[in-house]
Amino acid sequence: MTAVGVIGLGSMGGGVAKSLLAKKFDTHVYDVRAEAVKTFVAQGAKAAPTPAALGAACGVVVVLVVNAEQTEKVLFGEEGAAAAMQKGAVVVSSATLAPDVAEQLGARLEKMGLLMLDAPVSGGAAKAAAGEMTIMASGAPEAFARCEQVLAAIAAKVYRLGDRPGPGSKVKMINQLLAGVHIAAACEAMALGLRAGADPKTLYEVISNSAGSSWMFQNRVPHILAGDYAPLSAVNIFVKDLGIVLDTAKKFGFPLPLTATAHQLYLAAAAQGHGLEDDSSVVKVYAALAGLHLPKDRAD
Amino acid sequence: MTAVGVIGLGSMGGGVAKSLLAKKFDTHVYDVRAEAVKTFVAQGAKAAPTPAALGAACGVVVVLVVNAEQTEKVLFGEEGAAAAMQKGAVVVSSATLAPDVAEQLGARLEKMGLLMLDAPVSGGAAKAAAGEMTIMASGAPEAFARCEQVLAAIAAKVYRLGDRPGPGSKVKMINQLLAGVHIAAACEAMALGLRAGADPKTLYEVISNSAGSSWMFQNRVPHILAGDYAPLSAVNIFVKDLGIVLDTAKKFGFPLPLTATAHQLYLAAAAQGHGLEDDSSVVKVYAALAGLHLPKDRAD
Repeated sequence: MTAVGVIGLGSMGGGVAKSLLAKKFDTHVYDVRAEAVKTFVAQGAKAAPTPAALGAACGVVVVLVVNAEQTEKVLFGEEGAAAAMQKGAVVVSSATLAPDVAEQLGARLEKMGLLMLDAPVSGGAAKAAAGEMTIMASGAPEAFARCEQVLAAIAAKVYRLGDRPGPGSKVKMINQLLAGVHIAAACEAMALGLRAGADPKTLYEVISNSAGSSWMFQNRVPHILAGDYAPLSAVNIFVKDLGIVLDTAKKFGFPLPLTATAHQLYLAAAAQGHGLEDDSSVVKVYAALAGLHLPKDRAD
Repeated sequence: MTAVGVIGLGSMGGGVAKSLLAKKFDTHVYDVRAEAVKTFVAQGAKAAPTPAALGAACGVVVVLVVNAEQTEKVLFGEEGAAAAMQKGAVVVSSATLAPDVAEQLGARLEKMGLLMLDAPVSGGAAKAAAGEMTIMASGAPEAFARCEQVLAAIAAKVYRLGDRPGPGSKVKMINQLLAGVHIAAACEAMALGLRAGADPKTLYEVISNSAGSSWMFQNRVPHILAGDYAPLSAVNIFVKDLGIVLDTAKKFGFPLPLTATAHQLYLAAAAQGHGLEDDSSVVKVYAALAGLHLPKDRAD
């Protein structure tokens, strides 16, 4: 089996590294945070001192950093991975990128003789740790072929969305638009329910089984009911991801009134100091605006 | 078995009448539209010339008219049902009402010696016709007891949400907030996907199985893919229902930025002439704004 590199050991990238190690891959890791690297070295991974060293050693490099800027830096910056990789090696680009950025990235790697999968991921930290992410991927058939075992190790479901970079990131963008709006809507709905005097647990149970339900309503409202805002995915992720959606749509001259409104709510939550907390903290914006006591508040 | 009356024979009330007739209830019907009454008389229902005549004949009266104004009129207007009903008879109030209106209605009926279930319904026309609606109900245990067989005949699931009118309408209101926002979000997402050049069927399939999914996304997007805007539930229903949500929240002094934005989108669709079409017609607002061709457009 080819050696596999993972750049970025956050909740999603860490899950990828863990899944690869569990399947006995020769796994190389890089992260700017020495602590994160240590954790995986203790589990059998090889620490690369630079992205370039990782790229030189690996036939497949999974990039799961935070955004486009970091992706650019670890691939093409000083000591970047791309220039060190062998011809025909594959970059699996899994950070959420604007579709046009993913396309440009693919063209740039192609000129260097490298393959790329435009392969954003979904499913959250728990799925990533279990090797059960969903991957929305597009790229050359050869890129898919060379990554087949790697993808099987880290994902429960791989959608093949096209034979070049771009479509993967488009589908991911639309998914993020909906996910972001639905979390904010769940917060707005639960907050109004609390204000109206409805029992929040009953609301959750009834609506989870009714036409008002969403994947995000079912997943995030329990955090609100428990008063547990430890970040499974942070407010700042949607500040960023809905920002990508809005920027991309602006280039098209395309209006997104609901997405823009939801983005303002994530910005408000971040402004209130909740940027690093769970994204269900958007409910605290409503609580602050309307003097509402949330479940498990100290005031309860 | 007690005689049962149904006032309002639209898609939901008609489904209730059909389900009662299928279970051999002595079913009395009233609607201002003679055509609708005829249809059910042909199936064995008894036509009541006025709501009062229906009320005099029935121990349980299901009111499934469009809104609060019509509910008020058929119960308390000239030849209204309430004054003609026997003491201890039950009004099942199933139109979507503001929670405070439902509470006031209950108090008014109680003074007349009548029982009321605050019992808004969910599930759509097909479920109603099959006797498989969801009912979000609250009211006195005696009211539930007297309606037990009727509720079993018309609903697959009855939530008992409290022992007085109010909680049923509160849960329904929160459900409608989410349902309305989710339909508009599905339209916004599919429209951006089309503009970005993503394949709409692929978007539907991937997102239906991802974190961006909602009950409404799964249910309404097929209408957009098929270009079929025959109304299963019309744009005007959400102009009304989100209006109720916003009016109720305004009384609380409670801001609902996402609901307000979604409401504007339904108003825009109605302004564009789509008020009587399927609520997925909100996608046409985006198409008009951005010169987009929808699936199955004549221009395709």
